[in-house]
Amino acid sequence: MKEEFALLPPTAQGGFFFFEITAAWLVEADRTYDVHRHNTGRELILIHTEAGQGELRLADGRRITLAAGDFFAVSGAELHRYRTTAAPWRFSWWAGHPYGAIPFELCRPYRAEFPDGPAKAAAVLPGLRAPDARRRRLAMAEFQELLWHWIPESGGEDSRIAAALEYMHYHLDAPCRVEALARSCGLSVRHFRRCFEAETGKSPKQYGDELKLQTALGLLRNRDRTLKEIAAALGYSSSFHLSNAIRKRFGAAPKTLRRQPEGGPDGTSRSAT
Amino acid sequence: MKEEFALLPPTAQGGFFFFEITAAWLVEADRTYDVHRHNTGRELILIHTEAGQGELRLADGRRITLAAGDFFAVSGAELHRYRTTAAPWRFSWWAGHPYGAIPFELCRPYRAEFPDGPAKAAAVLPGLRAPDARRRRLAMAEFQELLWHWIPESGGEDSRIAAALEYMHYHLDAPCRVEALARSCGLSVRHFRRCFEAETGKSPKQYGDELKLQTALGLLRNRDRTLKEIAAALGYSSSFHLSNAIRKRFGAAPKTLRRQPEGGPDGTSRSAT
Repeated sequence: MKEEFALLPPTAQGGFFFFEITAAWLVEADRTYDVHRHNTGRELILIHTEAGQGELRLADGRRITLAAGDFFAVSGAELHRYRTTAAPWRFSWWAGHPYGAIPFELCRPYRAEFPDGPAKAAAVLPGLRAPDARRRRLAMAEFQELLWHWIPESGGEDSRIAAALEYMHYHLDAPCRVEALARSCGLSVRHFRRCFEAETGKSPKQYGDELKLQTALGLLRNRDRTLKEIAAALGYSSSFHLSNAIRKRFGAAPKTLRRQPEGGPDGTSRSAT
Repeated sequence: MKEEFALLPPTAQGGFFFFEITAAWLVEADRTYDVHRHNTGRELILIHTEAGQGELRLADGRRITLAAGDFFAVSGAELHRYRTTAAPWRFSWWAGHPYGAIPFELCRPYRAEFPDGPAKAAAVLPGLRAPDARRRRLAMAEFQELLWHWIPESGGEDSRIAAALEYMHYHLDAPCRVEALARSCGLSVRHFRRCFEAETGKSPKQYGDELKLQTALGLLRNRDRTLKEIAAALGYSSSFHLSNAIRKRFGAAPKTLRRQPEGGPDGTSRSAT
C-alpha cells in the first residue's frame, strides 16, 4: 500500500471564507470615467486593477489610488466615487456577500504579482452567466482561487524564516537541526532562533516536536498504521520513543488516543488480514 | 469604455458551500486493505476512486461499491468499514467540515468523467501541508473546484433544453424565437415548450423576458449606463419599451429603481463629464 497525506491540526485550520459573487464586471475605462455612487449597498466590493490607474473616494474622505496589480476590498457603503486617473483604467469589479471571517484587510491596497490574473478573471465571467447552477458554482470556486493569488501576504508572517518552516513541514521524518535550518534562511543561529521564536512563539525544536506529535495524532486517528510505522515516518528512533513523547504531550497512550474521536478527524484501525 | 459583465439575480444565487479540509489522503490500496472504523467522527468524508474498486459498509448495513470515476460523500459516523474489491484500489479521501448547504446528496455515488482529477488531487496535498496559511487556503480553493468537477449533475436539470438555456443566457440581446430555440435542442416546438415549462416553470418567452428584466435591474443598479444603452444591450427596440416592461415587472420607474439599494448589489450613476 502506498499513501500520501496532509493533516491539518486544529491550529492550522483557518476557519473558512467564501465570497458569493452577485455581480462581476471587467471594465476598460476611458479618461472621462467618473462614477458617483448614489446608494450604499450592503455588499462587499473587491477591485483588481490590471492596467492604468484609478482613484477611489471613501465615505470618510480618504482617496485611494489603485495602480496595476493592486487589489482592494471595501464595503459598498463606504465607496462614494471612483474615477480614472491614468487611462485606460482596466479593472475587474466583484460585488458579493462574504461568508465566514474575511481573511484580508478592508480599505488596504494589496499589491500582487499574478500575471495570469487578467486571463483567469475573464474566464470566470462566462461561468457566472451559465444557466447551469453547477457551472456557476465552479466559476465561483475559480474566483476564490484567484482571490488567494491577489492577496500575496498572510497574517504578517516573517519571510526570513519561511525556508525553515517550509523544510520542517515537508520533511517530517527529518531531525530538527537548528544549524542547518538557520543556514537555509541565511541567518546566524542566534538571529534565526530569535526570529523563529518571535514569529511562532516556540523554539525551532519545540515547533518541530509539536508538528510531529500533531501529525502522529492525526495518523493514529485516521489510518491503520502501526505505531512503529508512524515512528519511522516521523523520524523517531523507535516506537517506544514516540509512545513516550505522545503520553507526555497528550496525557494518554497511543492506543487510547486511537479510539478517541475528539479533536481528530476520525479513527480507524486495520483488521487482521 | 468597454465592459463585460455577469449579474446573478437572487434566484440564481445558490447560497454558498465551503468544505474545510482537515485531513486528505491519496491511497493505493492492495487486496488485503480492509479498514474497520472504530470511532464515529463528526466530519464529512468525501471519497473519489481513481482506479480499481472498493466497497464501503455503512452503519445501516448497506454496501456501496465504488469504481473508477465514482465520487461519494458520507458522514464519518455512518462509515463503518471499507476495503479493496479490485486491487489496486486508488482513491483520494477528504475529511473535513462542511459550511453552508451541502449541494450534493450524501450516500449516493456520483459518476464523473474528469481526466485531470487525479493530477489535480495530487497537486492539492502539498499546498495543504504548507506552513503558510495563504497557501493552505489556496489549496482548499483548488479543492472546491475539483469538487464541482466530480459532481457532474446539478439538481436534475433537463439536459434536453440545455442548449436553449445556454443560448438565452449568453445572447441577452437576441430576441426569443421559440422555433430557433427548439431547433437548437433538436425538439419539435410543441415538445420543446412542454420540456421547457416542466423544467423552468415558465414559457420560453416568459423565461427570456424575466432574464432580460433581471439583468436590466442589475445594470441600472450597478453601473452608469443610460436606459437607452441598457435597452440596446438587451435587444429592446427602444428605451421606451424597456421602461414600460420594467414598470410592469417591478412596479417602479427605472429612475426610482436605480436609487434603491434593496435586492440589487448596489447602485451607481455616471456624473456629467
